[in-house]
Amino acid sequence: MSRTVITLTTDFGSKDSYVAQMKGVILAINPHVQLIDVTHEVPPQHIRRAAAILDEAAAMFPAQSIHLAVVDPGVGSSRDIVAVEMADQRFIAPDNGVLSVVSRRSKPERAVRLTASKYWRDEISASFHGRDMMAPVAAHWSLGVDLVEFGEPLNRSLVEAPIPSPQRKGHCLVGEILWPDSFGNLVTNIDKSVLPHAGRDKLIVTVGSETIRGIDRCYTDRRPGELLALFGSSGRLEVAVNQGSASRRLGMHGGQTIEVAETP
Amino acid sequence: MSRTVITLTTDFGSKDSYVAQMKGVILAINPHVQLIDVTHEVPPQHIRRAAAILDEAAAMFPAQSIHLAVVDPGVGSSRDIVAVEMADQRFIAPDNGVLSVVSRRSKPERAVRLTASKYWRDEISASFHGRDMMAPVAAHWSLGVDLVEFGEPLNRSLVEAPIPSPQRKGHCLVGEILWPDSFGNLVTNIDKSVLPHAGRDKLIVTVGSETIRGIDRCYTDRRPGELLALFGSSGRLEVAVNQGSASRRLGMHGGQTIEVAETP
Amino acid sequence: MSRTVITLTTDFGSKDSYVAQMKGVILAINPHVQLIDVTHEVPPQHIRRAAAILDEAAAMFPAQSIHLAVVDPGVGSSRDIVAVEMADQRFIAPDNGVLSVVSRRSKPERAVRLTASKYWRDEISASFHGRDMMAPVAAHWSLGVDLVEFGEPLNRSLVEAPIPSPQRKGHCLVGEILWPDSFGNLVTNIDKSVLPHAGRDKLIVTVGSETIRGIDRCYTDRRPGELLALFGSSGRLEVAVNQGSASRRLGMHGGQTIEVAETP
Repeated sequence: MSRTVITLTTDFGSKDSYVAQMKGVILAINPHVQLIDVTHEVPPQHIRRAAAILDEAAAMFPAQSIHLAVVDPGVGSSRDIVAVEMADQRFIAPDNGVLSVVSRRSKPERAVRLTASKYWRDEISASFHGRDMMAPVAAHWSLGVDLVEFGEPLNRSLVEAPIPSPQRKGHCLVGEILWPDSFGNLVTNIDKSVLPHAGRDKLIVTVGSETIRGIDRCYTDRRPGELLALFGSSGRLEVAVNQGSASRRLGMHGGQTIEVAETP
Repeated sequence: MSRTVITLTTDFGSKDSYVAQMKGVILAINPHVQLIDVTHEVPPQHIRRAAAILDEAAAMFPAQSIHLAVVDPGVGSSRDIVAVEMADQRFIAPDNGVLSVVSRRSKPERAVRLTASKYWRDEISASFHGRDMMAPVAAHWSLGVDLVEFGEPLNRSLVEAPIPSPQRKGHCLVGEILWPDSFGNLVTNIDKSVLPHAGRDKLIVTVGSETIRGIDRCYTDRRPGELLALFGSSGRLEVAVNQGSASRRLGMHGGQTIEVAETP
Repeated sequence: MSRTVITLTTDFGSKDSYVAQMKGVILAINPHVQLIDVTHEVPPQHIRRAAAILDEAAAMFPAQSIHLAVVDPGVGSSRDIVAVEMADQRFIAPDNGVLSVVSRRSKPERAVRLTASKYWRDEISASFHGRDMMAPVAAHWSLGVDLVEFGEPLNRSLVEAPIPSPQRKGHCLVGEILWPDSFGNLVTNIDKSVLPHAGRDKLIVTVGSETIRGIDRCYTDRRPGELLALFGSSGRLEVAVNQGSASRRLGMHGGQTIEVAETP
């Protein structure tokens, strides 16, 4: 009995039967698998966001969990579908950048592109390879089939769609607001590892026309309704409002510049 | 240990405790069951859509999976609740049409209406038979109780709420747009089995004031932003926009006419 | 093998990786657990609503299920996180009122505040104690670790954020509309136990400028589109519209007064 975990990350939404169809295909092959939804609310075809979410989630799962990511604007075209072992986890996804945040953190150990049709459904639709190819391969992988059985070795790097790194300009670090999370906290591309550990209370964060003095430890360090900056649970700098929404307050949904400066 | 699958399809949304209450009732009877959500976002009381979603999903599941569908505008009235074996699967639902897309594809083999109260919760509310009757019957069914134990044989046909068939008018097939999926693709009632296999690149699709020449194989056959027609993963004709939303582009949400004509 | 149930109730939404991160942490400790989502759509930081939902759901689960509730506006501040045995179930939550509807129904038997860091993740973030402290404690609890191992006995009452009781004024009961459910039914704080069982068809319900005569048994007792009052599946008085939304019809989302009067 294999209670391997298979997670699902898609842009399918929750109104249709698409996610359940994939789960049905998996369970028909391995009824003992532990199925976990990461999210099905990736904004349609938003590869960079899917890549970041997948990286955040995968880092928490038991070793050798299988992560299926179906954000696939090129379905039916010539893009490859790949199965990859990296970061002590297993991944199946279209090779369109959706794996590139994980692969930056931890180099792929083994990778194939899916070509062995004996592990697919009998009939392959042109628009739903998540169900017809990726889901059955995930299920067979969870049963112990070795990666090399699923296709040909990938003799090149994975496609990149990485989160851009912040740039240093003198005493200033210039980053980007990536997106709001469900609370309206504005997540940025500035990782806590790139900022000095000492003197964080003296840093000045500028976003739009707002200035925030110092980086706080938690939301409640400020009064309800007040704007603050802090490192979120994934280590990224976030702009937040205690018990409110920074996204609504600043009218920002991603793409804007954020600057962190040492005081002069 | 029975790892039977029980799926749930409802119009309960995801803000309340209703779905979890049903799952709690099931797990208190069979803790080993594999619970899978199909969707809880069926538009309130939209029986036809629930019927189509249930059919699409059920077709993918292991044989003898149990599918619970609670879209039940008549709760507390005299409508029957039925348990049905068909299409190699098991179903529990109010008999209001929600099973009629499956039953059209594959005739019911055995059916009862639920009358044996020993398989229900002790107290039956007037407004939540999904929790009080259907969930516990599903759980007992998953443990091996035979269908006939749950009630009296259904000596009539299931209630129909089928998807209407397209009509042929000369060289033209006149169908209907059913609804948009999560991507904004407009799903129609035209199945690929009713269109000739050859010459699909010559067919002309008319929807609103737009004309589409030829049926494509996949989204990427057209440039991003372009309108196209293709057969979706369930075999139904869909109108889509590559990397966009046909529903938003055409301002359509279902109910409109779509025509497919051979070129003159 | 422990197939204990762990449920999750949060205000995290379904767009981010937060919920999956918690599940990953749990599965890395106990891969055999049965994970059930109650809801992740609690309005941000709405403690009273989370408390009511948790109470409704928990009542249906197998004895000794573990319920994790992460609605935690005070994360990182000095509020306690508690593990509590009550109502034949087990709970882990910040002690901010989220447990107070359950604890009113059934007094806590044993309670500790989490202090034993050996059951936590190695690194504790300032903003995600659900992942770093509560999830791993839930997983260890499901494996049989005794409550007392997790911290120090709680030598005080749980924090209260109870649903306010309705007030009696002469022949009139004055209650409050709490919130609309997913169907737009307006849920109130008036429990069926506080109204006389006989003569319910003679009671007069006043809400806004509308008057409803009698309390019905089910939605279909009135014609489609008609306003009615009935006891919902959790025993609370609700104002509903048969096949419609009372919330939209009356423009109410909670906080308003509702009166139930005996006819003069």
